[in-house]
Amino acid sequence: MVRIGVIGYGYWGPNITRNFAAATGCEMHAVADYSEANRDRAARLYRGLKTYSDPLEMIRSSEIDVIAVVTPLSTHFDLARQALLEGKHVFVEKPFTSTSAEAEQLIELAEKKGLQIMVDHTFLFTGAVRKIKEYLDQGVLGRLLYYDATKVNLGLFQHDSNVVWDLAPHDLSIMDYLVGADPEAMVVTGAHHYSGFEEMAYLTLYFPDNVIAHISVNWLSPVKVRSTLFGGEKKMLVWNDLEPDEKIRLYDKGVDVSNQDNRSGIYDLLVSYRQGDLIVPRVESIEALKTETQYFVECIEKNEKPFNDGVSGWRIVKMLEAADKSLKQRGGVVPIAL
Amino acid sequence: MVRIGVIGYGYWGPNITRNFAAATGCEMHAVADYSEANRDRAARLYRGLKTYSDPLEMIRSSEIDVIAVVTPLSTHFDLARQALLEGKHVFVEKPFTSTSAEAEQLIELAEKKGLQIMVDHTFLFTGAVRKIKEYLDQGVLGRLLYYDATKVNLGLFQHDSNVVWDLAPHDLSIMDYLVGADPEAMVVTGAHHYSGFEEMAYLTLYFPDNVIAHISVNWLSPVKVRSTLFGGEKKMLVWNDLEPDEKIRLYDKGVDVSNQDNRSGIYDLLVSYRQGDLIVPRVESIEALKTETQYFVECIEKNEKPFNDGVSGWRIVKMLEAADKSLKQRGGVVPIAL
Amino acid sequence: MVRIGVIGYGYWGPNITRNFAAATGCEMHAVADYSEANRDRAARLYRGLKTYSDPLEMIRSSEIDVIAVVTPLSTHFDLARQALLEGKHVFVEKPFTSTSAEAEQLIELAEKKGLQIMVDHTFLFTGAVRKIKEYLDQGVLGRLLYYDATKVNLGLFQHDSNVVWDLAPHDLSIMDYLVGADPEAMVVTGAHHYSGFEEMAYLTLYFPDNVIAHISVNWLSPVKVRSTLFGGEKKMLVWNDLEPDEKIRLYDKGVDVSNQDNRSGIYDLLVSYRQGDLIVPRVESIEALKTETQYFVECIEKNEKPFNDGVSGWRIVKMLEAADKSLKQRGGVVPIAL
Amino acid sequence: MVRIGVIGYGYWGPNITRNFAAATGCEMHAVADYSEANRDRAARLYRGLKTYSDPLEMIRSSEIDVIAVVTPLSTHFDLARQALLEGKHVFVEKPFTSTSAEAEQLIELAEKKGLQIMVDHTFLFTGAVRKIKEYLDQGVLGRLLYYDATKVNLGLFQHDSNVVWDLAPHDLSIMDYLVGADPEAMVVTGAHHYSGFEEMAYLTLYFPDNVIAHISVNWLSPVKVRSTLFGGEKKMLVWNDLEPDEKIRLYDKGVDVSNQDNRSGIYDLLVSYRQGDLIVPRVESIEALKTETQYFVECIEKNEKPFNDGVSGWRIVKMLEAADKSLKQRGGVVPIAL
Repeated sequence: MVRIGVIGYGYWGPNITRNFAAATGCEMHAVADYSEANRDRAARLYRGLKTYSDPLEMIRSSEIDVIAVVTPLSTHFDLARQALLEGKHVFVEKPFTSTSAEAEQLIELAEKKGLQIMVDHTFLFTGAVRKIKEYLDQGVLGRLLYYDATKVNLGLFQHDSNVVWDLAPHDLSIMDYLVGADPEAMVVTGAHHYSGFEEMAYLTLYFPDNVIAHISVNWLSPVKVRSTLFGGEKKMLVWNDLEPDEKIRLYDKGVDVSNQDNRSGIYDLLVSYRQGDLIVPRVESIEALKTETQYFVECIEKNEKPFNDGVSGWRIVKMLEAADKSLKQRGGVVPIAL
Repeated sequence: MVRIGVIGYGYWGPNITRNFAAATGCEMHAVADYSEANRDRAARLYRGLKTYSDPLEMIRSSEIDVIAVVTPLSTHFDLARQALLEGKHVFVEKPFTSTSAEAEQLIELAEKKGLQIMVDHTFLFTGAVRKIKEYLDQGVLGRLLYYDATKVNLGLFQHDSNVVWDLAPHDLSIMDYLVGADPEAMVVTGAHHYSGFEEMAYLTLYFPDNVIAHISVNWLSPVKVRSTLFGGEKKMLVWNDLEPDEKIRLYDKGVDVSNQDNRSGIYDLLVSYRQGDLIVPRVESIEALKTETQYFVECIEKNEKPFNDGVSGWRIVKMLEAADKSLKQRGGVVPIAL
Repeated sequence: MVRIGVIGYGYWGPNITRNFAAATGCEMHAVADYSEANRDRAARLYRGLKTYSDPLEMIRSSEIDVIAVVTPLSTHFDLARQALLEGKHVFVEKPFTSTSAEAEQLIELAEKKGLQIMVDHTFLFTGAVRKIKEYLDQGVLGRLLYYDATKVNLGLFQHDSNVVWDLAPHDLSIMDYLVGADPEAMVVTGAHHYSGFEEMAYLTLYFPDNVIAHISVNWLSPVKVRSTLFGGEKKMLVWNDLEPDEKIRLYDKGVDVSNQDNRSGIYDLLVSYRQGDLIVPRVESIEALKTETQYFVECIEKNEKPFNDGVSGWRIVKMLEAADKSLKQRGGVVPIAL
Repeated sequence: MVRIGVIGYGYWGPNITRNFAAATGCEMHAVADYSEANRDRAARLYRGLKTYSDPLEMIRSSEIDVIAVVTPLSTHFDLARQALLEGKHVFVEKPFTSTSAEAEQLIELAEKKGLQIMVDHTFLFTGAVRKIKEYLDQGVLGRLLYYDATKVNLGLFQHDSNVVWDLAPHDLSIMDYLVGADPEAMVVTGAHHYSGFEEMAYLTLYFPDNVIAHISVNWLSPVKVRSTLFGGEKKMLVWNDLEPDEKIRLYDKGVDVSNQDNRSGIYDLLVSYRQGDLIVPRVESIEALKTETQYFVECIEKNEKPFNDGVSGWRIVKMLEAADKSLKQRGGVVPIAL
């Protein structure tokens, strides 16, 4: 029985708690939060749940196996480090840490202690991402040419970070999972009007073989958009996460190009366009977080590394650091070393 | 009576011809095209139309006042220059010229000869752009914070230029018309898979006061998108050009920010979000090209410069040159001097 | 403090319970359900909640002021009658009763006992319906010409009634609330393929002055549709309940007709079409059931009849009876006497 | 070479003329119209076209093989009859005639004279209808359970007929073509507010085996809708004719029902819902009228009856007559004898 302690019962913590509570092989043991109101809210919902006002006290409890860190970014490192030092597995909210150096320390520490880290890249567990992964692995799309994501809406401004650190981790983690290659360099442009932090930003990531990814994030959009294009050599796919039933659209569209001698004797491109049927596959609609928390429990039982482990979290932090560096240069080309 | 000669009766030329033929105060006099089939097509539709296989012969005709250059980009400069030298006003397809130096020569020549140049930035004459211009001029949107356009579809590849020169001139000219300020620098990223020319590209333009514009163009998208977001301080607007009846959506949405002393004694941002009604104004649906050609006839009659004159065309070419320069550096920051 | 007892904790009962539990001036006292699993589910969520396996025992409890009947239709009458006999106010799920005679008995009984009945026509408390009511009351739409609703989806088949009794009560109650007149006659057509109960049906209701209502209900539609058109003399409105943010669209469209002498000397209609702006008003998004349960508590405190009282429930049952009668004649015209 | 004479060059006539002009094996010979302006418009577009102010004179011409009657409904019978008497094949706008008796006369006359009649049910030649027909013939949908069409918009009022005669012929002809069975009875409800003619109407048609069709037509809708649901036992299909690229959606959805002994010992229905992928097939996008006119030319060359012949036109007129009869009874059940 894997026993869980959750730090932070504000906005996202209740979801983490609810899903660990429902997972099999697992006991939702305690919640720590500075706010009494939050602790009360948790206690009312879960019979027998312990609550702590001091997270460190909970971390030291011998009745807990896993610490879930669901707190503001600036506290991730200290809390996760303490948890690992006390022999606890850790589940950490995204982004993993404020710096890649911190991430490296945590990974090393977990390694030494034989503990698991999972970074909460929830979207990797949605039915949509799993379906797209399946298509890519089976070669349905052919070679991936580009990835183009838009994640915009009105608010909610973060007070201690720009829109890249707030909204892009989702798309970066999905991209990292699906593209299956290391980005080599990054160019990020953006602007801010209300604070010192960018409220909108445009990220370009260069991969080998001319593969390109683009991510648009914006806190100042009147409309909410959550959509991603995948351009494959064989097929193309659009994922619209706001669609209730038709999240994925698989287009039998593409370009066929051949070089050939044209009339004037000069080699030229002959381009033709394939325009076939569109398929909207049925996508499983279980809650991603349910799958993810259950998976973490199983990883701990089997003592296996989750695929969304500390290294996976570190990769995203490396990209976020590169993004900030590029933003400071108003869009300079910044290499990424993964 | 302004007499028109059109060079090029391929894809776009028939539209230009049809609209000059319908304009008042104007006579659609002749068409020049190397292809006999094209000349025949034109002659069948318009009674009394003269046709020329040699454009230069038509340019020299004393029965013509205006030459419309509706040919591939590489020929714009020579044909327009000949026309101006022969004392003809010119109407030139977008983009104006292959280089800004060429554009400057043509502008100077027209100035010296007292002739008018119009560059065919058709979209400026759509009901939608005129309505948005009206909103901006009346202060409905408040100060413009950003402009974010997406213009993607499958094909048609151009064989002699990248997607920026093909698709971006529309959005650059609209942006230039509506933002009403000079962009200071540009960052462009992109990729190509089938030829030496980028098939997708992402343009960021920096304006004074943190105003930013972003334009996404792509020949490899399975879906056709023609949409633009305008973020204003007071209101926000989405223009979807593919909507038959509801092209413009004006959102009473925005952000109100005040600095204030929060409980912990630290100055902090207090952000609130306005979410009011949405208005979809009725937009006039006359053909843009009809308005544009009629306007050019009137400019010539009154000997007035059109607002989409040579300088307006030159500005777009300057941006396209900057885009190419930035693309070559994989996204370097390139200043634009207008 | 109004004390509530809920009978039925299956599909809809938990929502009723949750909202009474959250209402002010009210105590969620007890739940009755034959199923032990359902009773346990309720008891786990609400501290101190009493549970009963026998609804009649709960009805007789002196610690309860209101009985909410959230059970299958065939049991509504008996349970509500018992509750009224025991001096309890009743909140009854829609449709109110299986026959209008039953509804009449309950209304009479409540009258005699000085008790309140509320029929759960939840939709009347949505932000959308309230906004439309406001528009109609303010004369924004002008005289209402027609009401046209579509409520279709795949499943869920009811086993003891046709699609009319299952899906139409929503639209009939909304129509009855908004049209503000008594329908005079009804024509209903329909078909069944899988059981003896119609799985799809089309209802026409005739009102005075040529006002017409049409309601389409279908359990066999591949797509879910929840949309209603309101044709007014001045403006027209479309309500799409599946839209997350833009439920109501108010069109400045209409027809202006004048009789006039045409050229041939015969009086003729001159018809012109108004096509103005579209407004999508912001609609309050609080949970309808929350408003409704709070309102019932207040009605009881003030000893006032709710507008969705027994009579309002009886009207819908009268229409459902007429619908069944028309269906049996494959669409005969059946008068409705309200 | 089949020589064509078109009567009526107003709204639809130019389309008929243009397509016959482009058809192979065919000569667009003459146009008759009372209006000089219309005749001039035609003459300007087609070199060598003859024009007549008197349609009867054109009908008598020995240089014509086919008369296309593209005039108001009330004139169809007389013109088509004259044409047949003069030995001409006829192409008649929909609806075929004002009464079924007229249609019968024309059919008989054509039979006697060995001439062909085609009724212009254009939609039968669209890529969408052909694709749906293909699906139905191949058994993709399984047995058809229902047909449900909505064809509504604002205007254009006809001055001499109700909305049923104006808008329903399209859907009735499509239904008649696709359902492949004879409707047995009809129920039509409707209302009028501006004239003596119904501006909105709801048609139900009963077919054998509980198959049902419903058609909603409305001149007073603020939104334009052109959509049809096809409920099949195996699959379900939605055709939205306003979608530019995705007109047809084929849903792998349906209901599986089995009777079975449930726990309480009573036979009950066990219903399960299939929810599979959605396929949006590529639909050919050639102009329907082009296919139709070419097909008529070929029918005449081969002396074969078109499938949209006089009898097919007569069937629709019979249904329209039944509709009017039902409307007069405010929705009585009217048998249809085909």
